[in-house]
Amino acid sequence: MNLPKQVRLVEVGPRDGLQNEKQPISVADKVRLVDDLSAAGLGYIEVGSFVSPKWVPQMAGSAEVFAQIQQQPGITYAALAPNLRGFEAALEAGVKEVAVFAAASEAFSQKNINCSIAESLERFVPLMDAAKQHGVRVRGYVSCVLSCPYDGSVPPEQVASVARELYKMGCYEVSLGDTIGAGTAGATRHLFNVVGREVPRNLLAGHFHDTYGQALTNIYASLQEGINVFDSSVAGLGGCPYAKGATGNVATEDVLYLLNGLGIATGIDMDKLIDAGQRICTVLDKANGSRVARAKLASQ
Amino acid sequence: MNLPKQVRLVEVGPRDGLQNEKQPISVADKVRLVDDLSAAGLGYIEVGSFVSPKWVPQMAGSAEVFAQIQQQPGITYAALAPNLRGFEAALEAGVKEVAVFAAASEAFSQKNINCSIAESLERFVPLMDAAKQHGVRVRGYVSCVLSCPYDGSVPPEQVASVARELYKMGCYEVSLGDTIGAGTAGATRHLFNVVGREVPRNLLAGHFHDTYGQALTNIYASLQEGINVFDSSVAGLGGCPYAKGATGNVATEDVLYLLNGLGIATGIDMDKLIDAGQRICTVLDKANGSRVARAKLASQ
Repeated sequence: MNLPKQVRLVEVGPRDGLQNEKQPISVADKVRLVDDLSAAGLGYIEVGSFVSPKWVPQMAGSAEVFAQIQQQPGITYAALAPNLRGFEAALEAGVKEVAVFAAASEAFSQKNINCSIAESLERFVPLMDAAKQHGVRVRGYVSCVLSCPYDGSVPPEQVASVARELYKMGCYEVSLGDTIGAGTAGATRHLFNVVGREVPRNLLAGHFHDTYGQALTNIYASLQEGINVFDSSVAGLGGCPYAKGATGNVATEDVLYLLNGLGIATGIDMDKLIDAGQRICTVLDKANGSRVARAKLASQ
Repeated sequence: MNLPKQVRLVEVGPRDGLQNEKQPISVADKVRLVDDLSAAGLGYIEVGSFVSPKWVPQMAGSAEVFAQIQQQPGITYAALAPNLRGFEAALEAGVKEVAVFAAASEAFSQKNINCSIAESLERFVPLMDAAKQHGVRVRGYVSCVLSCPYDGSVPPEQVASVARELYKMGCYEVSLGDTIGAGTAGATRHLFNVVGREVPRNLLAGHFHDTYGQALTNIYASLQEGINVFDSSVAGLGGCPYAKGATGNVATEDVLYLLNGLGIATGIDMDKLIDAGQRICTVLDKANGSRVARAKLASQ
């Protein structure tokens, strides 16, 4: 079995994670989390989001967070930007990489961002132009790639079409997100096979949620398809907005444990990562969502 | 990829699960759990254990449980029997299938059952003879097949040697248990490759714990090695005695969800299974350990 020798983990905890936590969290605590993750060896950290605080109150203060984190050489500190306005705010905050997102399901696109998939892609055109002009790299997210909370299962061809548009538009990497975590291993492999015909496989990433406990298995299945970039969230920060009390983003610690076991290099220090996750969970006064962290902390 | 078309799940919740729960549980509640599992379509249920209640107080009353459950045709109702005395008690209770267990690690064998691996295997000889005489089938468990809480990693050759002894002794199936849940997918595949040289692969089963979140991935890896029998525990009953607060047995619901997604037949009804798990969790006043159950119950 030829698995990748190296994997890059994209840490989405400070953004995708915290955005879905209920407790308010201070700029200082966000900064500390990002700095802890830098120290743990994460090579890519999604720090915040330049969206209206009216819609996503947890992401208020992203500019302050960017101003205060200790940026280390070799680490990418990225922000989500939904449109040109968000991009300009990110640029002003000194952000050098942004992410944009589209849905693979029409119903989700309408309910989540109030427009069709095609409209959402159109909005990115001026953003992509501005990004090119300023030398800012853009990563693309596609949500609901295996299932939609409103439409049920989503055809992989539909995902491929959205991923292709993002790629053609200039996204250097497209991350495929199983937003409600309902997908399983066979469907995951099939998805990468279909999307891989439209976007080079080495420019695809996997973004799995653990709502049904399937995230690690889907990552293992993706590795077998040659995918070597995965999004994850320290301590499983985030929860699932579509099933209260359920798990959301796969925990970075658990992914790292799997990769370490498979002998796949990541450059991440497990102990420091667990400390970073446990610290933010203490701040949030919530149980650690990583099974690895819970097991290691319990056996200490 | 050739995955098995059919998988048999061995439900260990009423025995391996409840044995590690702290709250006392009545015979009536145990009976109800077993009957619920029968109704959900489980084909094999480990109902209880004929060990001294001094050592395992939760398993007191196993004979009463056997007397009161509604045994359905086509379902195997098994009991754990550590020695001839336990076997005789099981026989008296009308048990038609028993399970015996040995460790793959010397340190675990000594600490868990106070004897060497070789001594533990010797104790099974009279039990196996009696079983043969009474037409009782015997299933073998090997614990610590990927890692030992005292010895660390366990060589697969050592596991193969214990599995071979159990097989030669007359066990019709040998279940390989990752007792502390520390194993990962690559090691799991390697394990079945090595043990598969000593015991026919179709007579091997996988028994995974989810302590580090790896159980489903290990099951998917095992399926790829042609293994088609897995032990699991409804609602993830059991916990992990080696890391307090950590997860133990993989939840049957989560395994079923994976298998359903892969199009692998089991004959199990998910809704009834979730109901069975939720009911016993209510009795035990504990959170449901199945992510699938939590997600489905939360979205209702």
